[in-house]
Amino acid sequence: MKVLVINCGSSSLKYQLIDMENEEVLAKGLCERIGIDGKLKHEATGKDKYLVNITLNDHNDAIKAVLDALLDSEHGVIRDMNEIDAVGHRVAHGGDHFDKSALITPNVKEYITKYIELAPLHNPANLTGIEVCEKLMPGVPMVAVFDTAFHQTMPEKAYLYAIPYKYYEKYKVRKYGFHGTSHMYVSQECAKLMNTPIENLKLITCHLGNGGSVTAVQNGVSIDTSMGFTPLDGIAMGTRSGSIDAAAVLYLMKKENLTTDEMDTILNKESGVYGLSGVSSDFRDIEDAEIEGNKRAEVALETFAYRVAKTVGEYVATMNGVDAIVFTAGLGENSGPTRQIICSYLGYLGIELNSYRNSVRGKAVEITTKQSKTKVFVIPTNEELVIARDTRNIVSGVE
Amino acid sequence: MKVLVINCGSSSLKYQLIDMENEEVLAKGLCERIGIDGKLKHEATGKDKYLVNITLNDHNDAIKAVLDALLDSEHGVIRDMNEIDAVGHRVAHGGDHFDKSALITPNVKEYITKYIELAPLHNPANLTGIEVCEKLMPGVPMVAVFDTAFHQTMPEKAYLYAIPYKYYEKYKVRKYGFHGTSHMYVSQECAKLMNTPIENLKLITCHLGNGGSVTAVQNGVSIDTSMGFTPLDGIAMGTRSGSIDAAAVLYLMKKENLTTDEMDTILNKESGVYGLSGVSSDFRDIEDAEIEGNKRAEVALETFAYRVAKTVGEYVATMNGVDAIVFTAGLGENSGPTRQIICSYLGYLGIELNSYRNSVRGKAVEITTKQSKTKVFVIPTNEELVIARDTRNIVSGVE
Repeated sequence: MKVLVINCGSSSLKYQLIDMENEEVLAKGLCERIGIDGKLKHEATGKDKYLVNITLNDHNDAIKAVLDALLDSEHGVIRDMNEIDAVGHRVAHGGDHFDKSALITPNVKEYITKYIELAPLHNPANLTGIEVCEKLMPGVPMVAVFDTAFHQTMPEKAYLYAIPYKYYEKYKVRKYGFHGTSHMYVSQECAKLMNTPIENLKLITCHLGNGGSVTAVQNGVSIDTSMGFTPLDGIAMGTRSGSIDAAAVLYLMKKENLTTDEMDTILNKESGVYGLSGVSSDFRDIEDAEIEGNKRAEVALETFAYRVAKTVGEYVATMNGVDAIVFTAGLGENSGPTRQIICSYLGYLGIELNSYRNSVRGKAVEITTKQSKTKVFVIPTNEELVIARDTRNIVSGVE
Repeated sequence: MKVLVINCGSSSLKYQLIDMENEEVLAKGLCERIGIDGKLKHEATGKDKYLVNITLNDHNDAIKAVLDALLDSEHGVIRDMNEIDAVGHRVAHGGDHFDKSALITPNVKEYITKYIELAPLHNPANLTGIEVCEKLMPGVPMVAVFDTAFHQTMPEKAYLYAIPYKYYEKYKVRKYGFHGTSHMYVSQECAKLMNTPIENLKLITCHLGNGGSVTAVQNGVSIDTSMGFTPLDGIAMGTRSGSIDAAAVLYLMKKENLTTDEMDTILNKESGVYGLSGVSSDFRDIEDAEIEGNKRAEVALETFAYRVAKTVGEYVATMNGVDAIVFTAGLGENSGPTRQIICSYLGYLGIELNSYRNSVRGKAVEITTKQSKTKVFVIPTNEELVIARDTRNIVSGVE
C-alpha cells in the first residue's frame, strides 16, 4: 500500500509518498509560496533533486504539481495515479471530538470546519488540502490525523484553566496541546530503544523547533503538555512568547492601544527568542550572535533553555518521577549546546550527559552515560510516518 | 523602640504596634469598610477585644481611629503619641528601583507614585496611608517595605518575558513577583529550624492564601517566583486565574466583546477556584462542598493542588534540587489535606509526610518524617514583624 501524506500550510504544502510494505519514503517534497509565485522541491529516493519554479495560484495548483512530479517520467516514482492507495492529511485542530485519527467523511469535515474557530490559520489550509485531493483523486480513501488527538487523554486538572467555568462550557476554552503526532512517535520510539513496554514508562518529550512544546507521557498517554488553547502558550519559541502574565498583555494593549488581533500578532509573530534577541527567529542565527558576544542573544538563549528546563521540572512533578527525557525536532535533534544547558538544570534527576554522544545531530541515540539515573535520548521525529501508519490502519480497518 | 506597622488596602487598613525590645505585639487591629460606613476591630495584648462601628469616611478617619484606640484609656496600650517611635508601611510595588526597604522621603514617595501604574489598586492606598500618617504624626520617621523588593535578585532569564524587548525598555514589562516579605520571612525561619545557614540552602516557599505564590529561594535570595508583572500570574488562586494561554484571553475578549478592563476584572475577580468551582473563593467553603460530593469543587481543589505541585517541580529544576519546602499563609498554614495532596506529587524528592504532624494548624513545625530526604515545614508567616524589623533597622541606621 502506497500512502500520500499531505501537510498543508496557508502558503506551503509538504508531502511524502510512503510505501507501507517497508515504510520506505519513495518521494518527498515541498511546495512554497503558494498564491504568491510558486516553487516546488521534489526528491525521489535514489534520483536527483527536482526543483521547479512554477505558478502555484492556489492549493489546487500545488497538489496538481505534486501529482505531476510523482508521475513524472524522469523524477517520478509511480506510473499511474491509481497506485496511490490512500491519502493521510495532517489536521491541526480536532477540538475535544477527536482522540485519534479518523477516516474523512462529510461529518469529519464538518468538525474540521467547526474547529476553524480554534485554529484560524491552520484548519482552513488543512481543509483546502483535503478538498483539493478529493477532487483530484476521487474515490481514494483519506484520513485526518490531528495534532491535538494525542493530548485528549489529559485529565481535567491539566486541561482546565482557572477561569469561570461557563467559558469552558460555552466556548470550550481549555488546554488542547499540539505536536501530538510528534510526541506520540518519539515516546513510542523511546520505549523501543529502552526495551521497555511504554505502559511502564514515565517520559518527557521535548519537541523543540521553531514552535516548541513539552509533554508528559505516562504509560504511553499524554497527561499534560505545555501548549494550551492555542500553540502560543508554554515555552518561549522562535517568534511566540510562550506563557506570560495575562495582565501584562492587557496592560500592553491599553498602553499601545492595540486590538486583540494586533496583540495576537505581536505575541505570535514578533515575540519569542526573536523578540528577546532582536536577531532572528532561527536559533542558529542567535547562537552565532551569542558567539560574537551579542548580550541579548545570550539572554534569549538562556531564557529559552531555562524555560524548557522548568517545564521538564513541572512534568517530573506531574508524573512523580521520570524515566527518560527525549529531545526532538529541529533544535532538539541538532543543538548539543541547547540540550546540554537544559540538562544542566536536571542534575537532581541523576542525569549525566555523555558529551560525545550529545554532539550527535539528527540521529536516534541515548546521550547519557551508563550510570545516568534518568536517561536522555535524541530521537528524530517522523510525523509523516505516523500519519501514513494511521492512514494505512484506518483504511485497512485495522485501527 | 515601638513601631507602628500599617498595611493600607483600598477600603481596609491593618495595623500592629510592636515593641521592638522583645518583638512583642502590644496591639493589633483592622479597619474595614473605609469610605462605606466603617468598622474597627482592635485588640491589645492581655485586654478585651474592642469592636466599634464608627464612620470612616476615608483613610484619615481610619488612622485617627487607630491612634485613638491605641491611646484609649481602657483598650489602649500607650499614653502619648510620642511613644510611637517609627511607622513601617507595607507598599505593594517598588518597581525595579527598590531591592530593599527605604526610609520614606519625598523622593521615595515620587517612586511609589510612579509605580501606581504597575499596581493601580494597591500603591494609591499605600501612599494615602503614608501621607495621612505624616500629617497625624509629624516628625515620626517612616519606612516603606515593598512586596516586590525580595524578588529583585531574580536573574534576567527568570524575569524577562519572551516578548519584543522594547516593551521591557519602554514600560518595564517584566516579572516582579509579590509576597516578598512573606517569602523572605518564612525562608529565614526555615533556615533557623533547620539549623543551617540560609546561604547553604535551596528552599521553595509556598505562600498559599486567597492570593498565592511560590518562590525559589537559593542561598537566601529569591531567584524565581510564580507571580509576574502583576499578582495575577502563576498558580490558581481564590479568584485569580493564575497562568493561562494569553491567546485564550484574547479569544474570550473577541467572543464576548470585552474591554481590557472587563477582561482584567474577570481574570482577577471571577476566576481561580471560585470560577472553576462556582462555589466560593474561600477554600474552606470549597472543601466543604467537595465533602458533600460537589464535582466542580473537587476539580477546583485538584487543579489548585496540581498547579502548586507543578510550580514546586519547576523550581526544583531552577535550583537543580531542593532541601526543604515551606507552606505558609491561610491555606498553607491550615489545610493539611492541601499540603498532603501537593506533596503526593513529590515522592520523587524523597518526601515522606508524617500524618500527625501534617494535621497541625498555624504552628511552625516540620511535617515530614525523620527519613524524609527533602524536608517540609509549616511556618506561619509574619509580614508585620519583618516590616517592624526593617523599620527599626533603617530608623536606627543599622540596615
